[in-house]
Amino acid sequence: MDRKHLPRRQSIKPSRALTIRDVAKAAGVSVSTVSKALNGNGQLREETRTAVRSVAERLRFRPNEMARSLPGPRTFTVGLISIDRKGRFSIPVLDGVEDALGVAGISVFLCNTANNPERERQHVHSMLAKRVDGIIVTGGRAVARPPLDLEGEDIPVVYAFARVDDPDSLCLLPDDRGAGAGVARHLVGLGRRRFAHVTGPADAEAVRDRREGFEAMLAEHGIALARERVLTGSWSEAWGHAAVERLLAPGAPLDAIFCGSDQIARGVVDALRDRGVRVPDDVAIVGFDNWEPFAEASRPPLTTIDMNLHELGRNAGMCLFARARDPAVRALADHALPDQRTKAGVLRLPCSLVIRESCGAVRAE
Amino acid sequence: MDRKHLPRRQSIKPSRALTIRDVAKAAGVSVSTVSKALNGNGQLREETRTAVRSVAERLRFRPNEMARSLPGPRTFTVGLISIDRKGRFSIPVLDGVEDALGVAGISVFLCNTANNPERERQHVHSMLAKRVDGIIVTGGRAVARPPLDLEGEDIPVVYAFARVDDPDSLCLLPDDRGAGAGVARHLVGLGRRRFAHVTGPADAEAVRDRREGFEAMLAEHGIALARERVLTGSWSEAWGHAAVERLLAPGAPLDAIFCGSDQIARGVVDALRDRGVRVPDDVAIVGFDNWEPFAEASRPPLTTIDMNLHELGRNAGMCLFARARDPAVRALADHALPDQRTKAGVLRLPCSLVIRESCGAVRAE
Repeated sequence: MDRKHLPRRQSIKPSRALTIRDVAKAAGVSVSTVSKALNGNGQLREETRTAVRSVAERLRFRPNEMARSLPGPRTFTVGLISIDRKGRFSIPVLDGVEDALGVAGISVFLCNTANNPERERQHVHSMLAKRVDGIIVTGGRAVARPPLDLEGEDIPVVYAFARVDDPDSLCLLPDDRGAGAGVARHLVGLGRRRFAHVTGPADAEAVRDRREGFEAMLAEHGIALARERVLTGSWSEAWGHAAVERLLAPGAPLDAIFCGSDQIARGVVDALRDRGVRVPDDVAIVGFDNWEPFAEASRPPLTTIDMNLHELGRNAGMCLFARARDPAVRALADHALPDQRTKAGVLRLPCSLVIRESCGAVRAE
Repeated sequence: MDRKHLPRRQSIKPSRALTIRDVAKAAGVSVSTVSKALNGNGQLREETRTAVRSVAERLRFRPNEMARSLPGPRTFTVGLISIDRKGRFSIPVLDGVEDALGVAGISVFLCNTANNPERERQHVHSMLAKRVDGIIVTGGRAVARPPLDLEGEDIPVVYAFARVDDPDSLCLLPDDRGAGAGVARHLVGLGRRRFAHVTGPADAEAVRDRREGFEAMLAEHGIALARERVLTGSWSEAWGHAAVERLLAPGAPLDAIFCGSDQIARGVVDALRDRGVRVPDDVAIVGFDNWEPFAEASRPPLTTIDMNLHELGRNAGMCLFARARDPAVRALADHALPDQRTKAGVLRLPCSLVIRESCGAVRAE
C-alpha cells in the first residue's frame, strides 16, 4: 500500500507519568470511579463526577494518559466475540466491556460469530494471529457453549452474559436467584401474601434460578407457592395475556404476580386492566429486565429487576485485566471489586430492584 | 511478552483460488446472496440459502476461502466507530457492517466514542496508527456531525445511519421521504381519505422528511393534510396517548393516522381502544421502525415501515470496499448494488412496508 508513514509521536513527560491511580488517590475515590467519571459513562452521582473531573483537571491529567502510563510500546489488545446480538441484552454488556477497555486506551477487535462454530473458529484463529492479549465472549446465555478453542495458546478468556460448559472458565452472569429472592422480599414487605409467577420457557436456566430464589424467599416467610400458580411459557406479551386468563379462571384470590420479563408483565398488566382488576390495588406486579420502553410505558409503570448489564460488562473487562500477564495491565483492574481475580467458575453479579408504581410501593403524583 | 509464536499456516491451493464469485456464478445468484447464504445472516428465502450452500459444498468452497482469495499477505483492516449505541437502531446497522466485512475475513477494530469528541479524536488517532484501510461511522443520526479528522491521511470513510456536515462525505441513510410517500399511497389505496400524522420532535430531519413525503403523496391524490392534523412531540407511547386526546377532541372525522414510530403508534392504538374507536375498522394505523416487540404485541399488530438497517450496514461495508485502494478489496464489492461507488453525498436506501393488521389490508385469521 502506498500509504505515507504516520509521524511517530512521543510526548514529553515529567519523570514519572501521571496515572489514573494518582487521580484516584488525590480525589479520594476508587480507580473505577475515576474511570467512570472521566469516561462519562457508568452510574455515578453528578457531584462525584464533577469532583473527580476537577481533580483530574487540577493535576492536568487527561484520559489518554491512562494508555500512555503503560510502560514500553503498548501492545495490549483484546478480542471481543459477540455470539448473538439478536437479543437487546448485548448492547449494555458490549458497552460496559468497551467502557472498561476504552478508557484504558486498549484496542478492541470485534467480531460477531452469529452462533456459527466455523465462523467462531476462523475469528479466534485470526485474533490469535493478531496476538490479542485476551478475549471476552458476550451474548448467548440461553444455551451453555463449549469453551473457545485457543489452539493451545494461553491467554485469559472471560465469558460475559454467556454460559460455558467448562468448570475452568470464568463466566459472569447476573444473580437471577438473588433477584427472585429480592422480589419476594419486597412484595412480602408490602403485605402481599397470595402469589403467582408467570415466566419464560421452563428449560431456561434463568427461569429456573429466578423461580427458585423467589420460592425459597417466600418459604422463609412461611408462604407456599402452589405449583399451579407457576406458569411457564414464552417471553412475550401474548403469553402474559394468556396466563392471566388461566390464573383468573378459577377465581382464586391473588394479590401479587412476579413476571419473568417486562414483556410478560406488560401483557399481564393489560390483561388485568381489561378484566377490571386494578394494578397495584388488587394485584401487585413486578417485572424483570428494566427494559425502559416497556417498563415506563406500562400503565401503571413497572417495578422491575435491572440486571446491571453495563456494570457486568465493565466487570468482565476488569476480570480480564486482573488475569493479564503484564503487571501494568493487571494494575488497571479495579481492586474495589472483590471477585475479579476469581480464576474460574460462575461469578454472579447483583441485580437491582427498580421501583415504579406497579408494585404499590409508590403512587403516581 | 513471553508468548509462543503461532505457526504460520499456509493452505495448499489449486492454481487459482476459488472465490465467492465462482460460487455466485455456479449458483446463478449475486455475490451478496452467496455471502448472506454462507454467513447465515440477512434476509433470504430458505430454499435459496439451501441451494447456495449445496453449490458451495459441491465446489468445496468454504467461507474462509474468501479471505484467502485476497492475494499476498492480507492486511485490510477497518475501524468501526459507533457514536452512540443507546438507540436500538445501532445493532442491526452494526451487524450489517460486520456481515459485509466478516464474511470477507476482514478485521474490525471497534470503538464507541459515546459522542465525546476528545474520545473520538483518540480513537481515530489510534486507528490511524494501526494503519486501518478504512473507517465506518455508525449511529447518531439525530444531529449532523463534523467529518472525522483523519490527521491528513487519505483513507475512505463511510457514514452509516449517521449524518455529517460535509458535502464531500458519503452518508447512507434510509429513504424517509420515500417511506412517508409509501405509507400515503398504501392508505389511499385502501380507501382512506381523512388523515392525521402523529410524529416525533419537529426539528428532527427524519420527522421533516417523513412528513414531506407523506404530504406530497397525499397531494398527488388530491388530499390535503390540514396543519392541525400534524402533531409533533416525543418518540413515546405517552405522546401517542396525548395526541389522540387532542385529535379526537374536536370530534372531526378521521379514518387514518400515520405515526412516526411504533412506540407512538402503540400509544395511539391503545388510546383509541380505550375510547371505543376500532382499529382498523374506524381508523387505520401505520407505524414506523418495525420494532417487532412493539409492532407484534400491539392489539391489533402494527403495519409499519422497516428501514432495512441490516442491509444499510451491509451496503456501508460494500461502499467501503468499492472505495478501497486495493483492487482485490474493491473486487469484494457487490456490483449488483448500483450506487455503491457513489463518491460523496447522501445515499438514501429504500425502506419496506411491513403489512400487519392495523391498516386494514389484512385481517386476523
